[in-house]
Amino acid sequence: MHYHVDGDLVPADEATVSVLDRGFMYGDAGFETLRAYGGDPFAWDAHRERLQHTAETLGFADAVPEDLRARVDETLDANDLTEAYVKVSVTRGVQPGKLTPDPDVDPTVVVVVKELPRGGRDGERVWDSPADVQTVRTRRVPSEAIPADVKTHNYLNGILGKLELRRAAVDGDAADECLMRTTAGHVAEGATSNLFFVTENGLRTPSEDLDLLPGVTRDVVMELAREEDLPMETGHYSLDVVRDADEAFLTNSTWEIRPVATVDGIEVGAGPMTKLLQRLYDERVEAEHY
Amino acid sequence: MHYHVDGDLVPADEATVSVLDRGFMYGDAGFETLRAYGGDPFAWDAHRERLQHTAETLGFADAVPEDLRARVDETLDANDLTEAYVKVSVTRGVQPGKLTPDPDVDPTVVVVVKELPRGGRDGERVWDSPADVQTVRTRRVPSEAIPADVKTHNYLNGILGKLELRRAAVDGDAADECLMRTTAGHVAEGATSNLFFVTENGLRTPSEDLDLLPGVTRDVVMELAREEDLPMETGHYSLDVVRDADEAFLTNSTWEIRPVATVDGIEVGAGPMTKLLQRLYDERVEAEHY
Repeated sequence: MHYHVDGDLVPADEATVSVLDRGFMYGDAGFETLRAYGGDPFAWDAHRERLQHTAETLGFADAVPEDLRARVDETLDANDLTEAYVKVSVTRGVQPGKLTPDPDVDPTVVVVVKELPRGGRDGERVWDSPADVQTVRTRRVPSEAIPADVKTHNYLNGILGKLELRRAAVDGDAADECLMRTTAGHVAEGATSNLFFVTENGLRTPSEDLDLLPGVTRDVVMELAREEDLPMETGHYSLDVVRDADEAFLTNSTWEIRPVATVDGIEVGAGPMTKLLQRLYDERVEAEHY
Repeated sequence: MHYHVDGDLVPADEATVSVLDRGFMYGDAGFETLRAYGGDPFAWDAHRERLQHTAETLGFADAVPEDLRARVDETLDANDLTEAYVKVSVTRGVQPGKLTPDPDVDPTVVVVVKELPRGGRDGERVWDSPADVQTVRTRRVPSEAIPADVKTHNYLNGILGKLELRRAAVDGDAADECLMRTTAGHVAEGATSNLFFVTENGLRTPSEDLDLLPGVTRDVVMELAREEDLPMETGHYSLDVVRDADEAFLTNSTWEIRPVATVDGIEVGAGPMTKLLQRLYDERVEAEHY
């Protein structure tokens, strides 16, 4: 494998950053994960825009390189990959030894890829089965501490959620995703996914004024629902509403739409809405990429 | 310069970690910063204990190497340093590509050093002047999201506080430290320091049940105050109480005890209590290290 580091393609085992890089020292970096289908990144503009928003929020607005897309393409080509997971990171780089960021930024830009199965109508899911979801005690970081709508290398909050699943595992069998609430107790999202569920009122998902990261896949699903005139609402929901849902599913760029089998041990499962949206999503990928 | 990376001394420009190291990808790592005086780390046991506590909280309890102290000593020796800043990091290392941590941990251990002036009675301060302190909007991350008493590579919360200072700078002159509050509005600490202040009731500092990192230097100062029978209390304080204080100072391992000149533009300044504690601190360093 070859990765892209700081402007160059390098063998994976030489893909490193300085121990003084602020991305390493402080998680002082933004990132995006996305999928390439048929050689092209899906929803590239949306991912680039969010990365730019992250960089602006962290005060290194000029760090996202103009040729970022070219670096992604070069990395895919170098590894002969058309169907792939892609992770792009931009850090504040190495700066003089103070926590206060220097306005002069020489960013470190990293592109990592790995092979995934084909997507689209004839694609193969990256997950084995619908997800078992478990509520955890760890709450989402409130936006007044770190804005929830930026995607950064500060990922311990989600890791602490995942650790709870590992610690609660029965016979080594942990839940697939944790369900995280805001400090006020509203359902927010998973550690690496957004949540949708279906009730008699239609499709529902926690609203963006909550402390959650509005995923690119979440946006695509909402757009598909609007195009099909499916009843949809966003709002503040308690755990009970989710546990009582008729259907539920999780979204992220890699999983696409993953049905939820159980929430806190209670069966929820897929259904017609989930299946319809999966089909619409696959058709969009197929139409745009194959 | 030479740093210690993963068991070996390496030239500083070859001191790197993999882009797949979880310390880089997620800030999934604990660290300590400390000072060496006369060749020996100050309060080593307290720093090691806190690093162990961090590792346990993050679920990699066995990752802190037995010979960590030897690695610090080797790094100081290799650079011919006796008076130094020392930063020790332990990450969860490289693991298969999932956010959920694997219980099998091959940690990455990094020791970075740089020269500082001598400490103790005849020492020189590392700061130029008393600190101007400015309250910021960014609140401390609540412990229900990430425990405040662990010191990790997720440092964006403090960086966002420091960015507010940079943005508010007048003629390039930013405040030296930000004063951060809990989400409930109580004074907690600085981005990289603990706060003490003095009122007619004596020495005061925010209590550990607030979302703050109880610093090793904070502990030493409290111990010195107890040894001298100085009146002291910990509690929950509003900004007004701090702004009205007779004296105030900040503590961390590098600064030791740094007087506060102003809080939000209001003069506070040093005084007899601050000066006494500085003297006691210097004497302890002198007695233990020179």
